[in-house]
Amino acid sequence: MDLERSPLACPFPDLPPISGATLRVARARYKEWDRCDLTFAELAEGTAVAGVFTRSACASSEVEIGRAQVPGRARALVVNAGNSNAFTGHRGREAVDGIVAQVADALGCAAEAVFVSSTGVIGVPLPLDNARAGIAAALEAAPCGWEEAAETIGTTDTFAKGAGASAMIGETRVELAGIVKGSGMIAPDMATMLGYIFTDAAVEPAFLQEMLAKANGESFSCITVDGDTSTSDTVLAFATGAARHAPLAGWDSPGADAFYAALRSVCLDLAQLVVRDGEGARKFIEIAVFGAQSDDSARRIAMSVANSPLVKTAIAGEDANWGRVVMAVGKAGEPADRDRLSIGFGGTWAAREGQPLTNYDEAPVADHLRGQNIRIDVDLGIGEGSATVWTCDLTHGYIDINADYRS
Amino acid sequence: MDLERSPLACPFPDLPPISGATLRVARARYKEWDRCDLTFAELAEGTAVAGVFTRSACASSEVEIGRAQVPGRARALVVNAGNSNAFTGHRGREAVDGIVAQVADALGCAAEAVFVSSTGVIGVPLPLDNARAGIAAALEAAPCGWEEAAETIGTTDTFAKGAGASAMIGETRVELAGIVKGSGMIAPDMATMLGYIFTDAAVEPAFLQEMLAKANGESFSCITVDGDTSTSDTVLAFATGAARHAPLAGWDSPGADAFYAALRSVCLDLAQLVVRDGEGARKFIEIAVFGAQSDDSARRIAMSVANSPLVKTAIAGEDANWGRVVMAVGKAGEPADRDRLSIGFGGTWAAREGQPLTNYDEAPVADHLRGQNIRIDVDLGIGEGSATVWTCDLTHGYIDINADYRS
Repeated sequence: MDLERSPLACPFPDLPPISGATLRVARARYKEWDRCDLTFAELAEGTAVAGVFTRSACASSEVEIGRAQVPGRARALVVNAGNSNAFTGHRGREAVDGIVAQVADALGCAAEAVFVSSTGVIGVPLPLDNARAGIAAALEAAPCGWEEAAETIGTTDTFAKGAGASAMIGETRVELAGIVKGSGMIAPDMATMLGYIFTDAAVEPAFLQEMLAKANGESFSCITVDGDTSTSDTVLAFATGAARHAPLAGWDSPGADAFYAALRSVCLDLAQLVVRDGEGARKFIEIAVFGAQSDDSARRIAMSVANSPLVKTAIAGEDANWGRVVMAVGKAGEPADRDRLSIGFGGTWAAREGQPLTNYDEAPVADHLRGQNIRIDVDLGIGEGSATVWTCDLTHGYIDINADYRS
Repeated sequence: MDLERSPLACPFPDLPPISGATLRVARARYKEWDRCDLTFAELAEGTAVAGVFTRSACASSEVEIGRAQVPGRARALVVNAGNSNAFTGHRGREAVDGIVAQVADALGCAAEAVFVSSTGVIGVPLPLDNARAGIAAALEAAPCGWEEAAETIGTTDTFAKGAGASAMIGETRVELAGIVKGSGMIAPDMATMLGYIFTDAAVEPAFLQEMLAKANGESFSCITVDGDTSTSDTVLAFATGAARHAPLAGWDSPGADAFYAALRSVCLDLAQLVVRDGEGARKFIEIAVFGAQSDDSARRIAMSVANSPLVKTAIAGEDANWGRVVMAVGKAGEPADRDRLSIGFGGTWAAREGQPLTNYDEAPVADHLRGQNIRIDVDLGIGEGSATVWTCDLTHGYIDINADYRS
């Protein structure tokens, strides 16, 4: 099916090359389509790798293997688009093993240094012959840029998604560049289907893992499109070390805070881009919860609001239906006091301390809701905990895409 | 808005009068509409009452008051349709107190014997003057039948919902009749927005409460439309005792099992009717999970499947997308083994023990999915736990209703 470009799409940013990381794309023809669908990243020797993965109990072989390889060292990444290879039993596992063997042989590296991700249809074993031909073609292809790679890892994505940042580590400037694909099955706990962040910084694998896990908790784990969680969700970070500064080994390493801030910024930008391409999304929604008993409690309440079909359809209908927000707060199973709860839209309170405002002027709220960027504030009024999450509205487009597309 | 009658609607059944319970309806004009919107049930002295309520932390005053009154004795029930009176602070509480005082005065009974429910818009205090006029009119109205009462408690319901059963207690035949309204905000833990069951059996209040809670766990708590939970969900059971047998006081009372079976049957019928009127529903979906680690685990997995937008849109699209069922099992957070999992539709396995069937014939599955009543089987293959839940598909109709209607 032909998907219309999301009205919330952002232009692809200018991202610098990352020394030590080379990207190539090729046609593996996983589907009957005329596009590149295999992405190959070659990484300099000694590249540190960290990863966070779906919590699904039915994860794909790619995820199971990847979980065991991080934190560690990486030489290559292969991303297959069009076939997730999930729920394919031993044949799926054999396909991944075949890809890893081919790449390790070509680069002369250990199998543990090769990472594989796959996204697309579940339940059809990845055709190894296609993968082999695609990898062979990629190995001979000219290097490509970030945008081409971002397009190649996509499936139902309607625009290519990338983000970058830089940081000073002592006198050395390091660069970060990331790409992501998303759109469906975007849910709490690890939201991006597939995201890859590359940097020329030098970072010890264990510390890179610690920073990625922390950044994930403030970015990918704070977005949701439909509450569904893919069996393949993966975010990997690769640090090639080409910038040749003293490696970051812990929070007391000089420059660690600056690097973390840059990493977090890339993760947050990528996460929000995924929401902006949520299936059928017409509005980007930020939900800020504060005054909760704890930050965790605030996050669970925010996610309850973000995943509520009734809230999401109200926003689609540009209806300041704060009653549905109350409902979603109430069902979260977290401490709340109906008579202290306040709800606002776009900075205007609609209800304060459990009651509609008597002098409530709906005009600025109605204006706000006609826009593309919606803000919902929820003040629980019982504590100091806070959290912000991001989601999109629920529209006819979501039904169109998911009732017709076999993902 | 004019809602089309659900294609899954069932005709209203023939239900006998229940001795000791008299129903009347009236116009309180809670909205600008030309219909009865206040239902008044008068109950014989000594009527036992039990109730189960929403677990929402932001429940309405009606629910807060009702929770404190069960198990107990009841003389009257007032149901307001068109205004839920939820999230209306002290003014909402005053409206309920006003209704209770008027009814207690008219019947010469204790305030604790008067039950009130309200459903409709959240955040607008129930106009007490309308309620008072409606109650006065109801007190003078002729008694009505079950179907008229079922219509009067409805809001976005597209058909009146009722169910009945009978049981022998010794030589005495007792009757049960129930009505329910639902449609939106139907979710786990207590699904029906408003349900009322009446019987002429004699039951001690504490035992009626025990039986209702148990029946609820096997019926209303096993349905979901959209995973959202109303702030007003209420199911009340009234036993007038007019059948004059020895009161049921516990499971060892003669006839207790027969009565429970009848009560459970009414609850299950009513619960499934709510799903059949799910907003935008075109298909009724039964999800049976077995081979799970425990019954509770099976129920959580079944609910994860039932609430998955990707599964619900696949069924809407008549797509045997068992991969999405795998995804929903995986995200449930319950014990599962990808390589032992089997998924079937309408009695035909699509995948067994973690892999697509090699000789899978999609034809009978495609036939099944074109029907209105869909069955999904999930065999975890790791234990003895089982559960069955019911839901409906997710269609454009859901978006239409919820993006346009302020509930």
